[in-house]
Amino acid sequence: MADKAVVLVSGGLDSTTALAMTRAEGRECFALSFDYGQRHRRELASARRVAAALGAARHLVLRLDLRAIGGSALTDDLPVPKGRSPEAIGHGIPVTYVPARNTVFLSHALAWAEVLEAEAIVIGANVLDSSGYPDCRPEYLEAFERLANLATRAGAEGQRRFRVLAPLIRLTKAEIIRRGTALGVDYGLTWSCYEPDADERGCGLCDSCQLRRKGFAEAGLEDPLPYAR
Amino acid sequence: MADKAVVLVSGGLDSTTALAMTRAEGRECFALSFDYGQRHRRELASARRVAAALGAARHLVLRLDLRAIGGSALTDDLPVPKGRSPEAIGHGIPVTYVPARNTVFLSHALAWAEVLEAEAIVIGANVLDSSGYPDCRPEYLEAFERLANLATRAGAEGQRRFRVLAPLIRLTKAEIIRRGTALGVDYGLTWSCYEPDADERGCGLCDSCQLRRKGFAEAGLEDPLPYAR
Repeated sequence: MADKAVVLVSGGLDSTTALAMTRAEGRECFALSFDYGQRHRRELASARRVAAALGAARHLVLRLDLRAIGGSALTDDLPVPKGRSPEAIGHGIPVTYVPARNTVFLSHALAWAEVLEAEAIVIGANVLDSSGYPDCRPEYLEAFERLANLATRAGAEGQRRFRVLAPLIRLTKAEIIRRGTALGVDYGLTWSCYEPDADERGCGLCDSCQLRRKGFAEAGLEDPLPYAR
Repeated sequence: MADKAVVLVSGGLDSTTALAMTRAEGRECFALSFDYGQRHRRELASARRVAAALGAARHLVLRLDLRAIGGSALTDDLPVPKGRSPEAIGHGIPVTYVPARNTVFLSHALAWAEVLEAEAIVIGANVLDSSGYPDCRPEYLEAFERLANLATRAGAEGQRRFRVLAPLIRLTKAEIIRRGTALGVDYGLTWSCYEPDADERGCGLCDSCQLRRKGFAEAGLEDPLPYAR
């Protein structure tokens, strides 16, 4: 029986590549997404397409209400920053940071991993070409792995050790895109834009669009997504 | 301005006492409960009454779908164990354990604490007269506190340290009841029973009812809740 992995899948470029890499290792993948009150809900349609295209054994979309908690431009009616320079992105924590989001996501992934008897929890976090969110750092992910093994029946009884895998953690966006392309990922299925009103085309100017476009340019590959500007 | 605390409030005896103790310290309390798919939803009515009676500044009830993940007699159609001996309770992890529940709850509490600029997250966990859940142990709570300070903007930028407080952690159930009674808690507002069909009266036989009754008996106090048997 193949090893099982719970893979966080947002519908974006990074988590899609992490899913493709985990599948390529021969693991049975259980894709997990969240309808958490994000204004760019468009990403969930991409998450469904990606999970199906990459052969996830199951795809679970859980509803959460992070909008009731607020504190982010991704859940509140605050403007999403546009046109920040590539140098500014990744310095300081931007208003698109959602308080404790990865802790909320990973805690659900842990619950599902325990029920599925999966060893691995996979997250597409990376630090080089990222928005500078604190809950994407390696020290954070190591702390979560330690917590996971104290939190659970499986960990407490020593039946199994959970591992938190972040296969992209030290890759640049260009390297991520090259890896995924080599694995046959169709990035036309994915969605990166933070802009709530964007639908068929990315806005091209938010941090997420900019990091993505810079990555494709550096990889020397064409981004299949259209942009408004 | 009073220090703020986010307090997990289930509607049960322990979390109610933790809320009363936190209020007695002069903190402004933000009560947080979860409609997570528990079959004993009756506890949420108690959570609302308790939050109001004890003067919480706000009470947020968040919806989660832990039933979609399953793996517990509290969320699945599995029988709740009845009539286990007091010696058996607390040895081994029972089927009422909900995978990663406290990690899911604490991660939302952390998100809200970050938005509120609260320092303390309060949980009514205790180890002496408990069901033996792994995510109630002190080493687990210490690991979560460490995680909290890596996970967040406030922690990463060193603005504030989050603290996870478990004021009941080393108290027996009888001591918890005596403390709460001294603070004027009306335990008639609370609800402990795991039985989904129980409404006005606790079943009297599930682990949670048994721990509660034993606590009142040892404290020499009368339990204001009626029991079916």
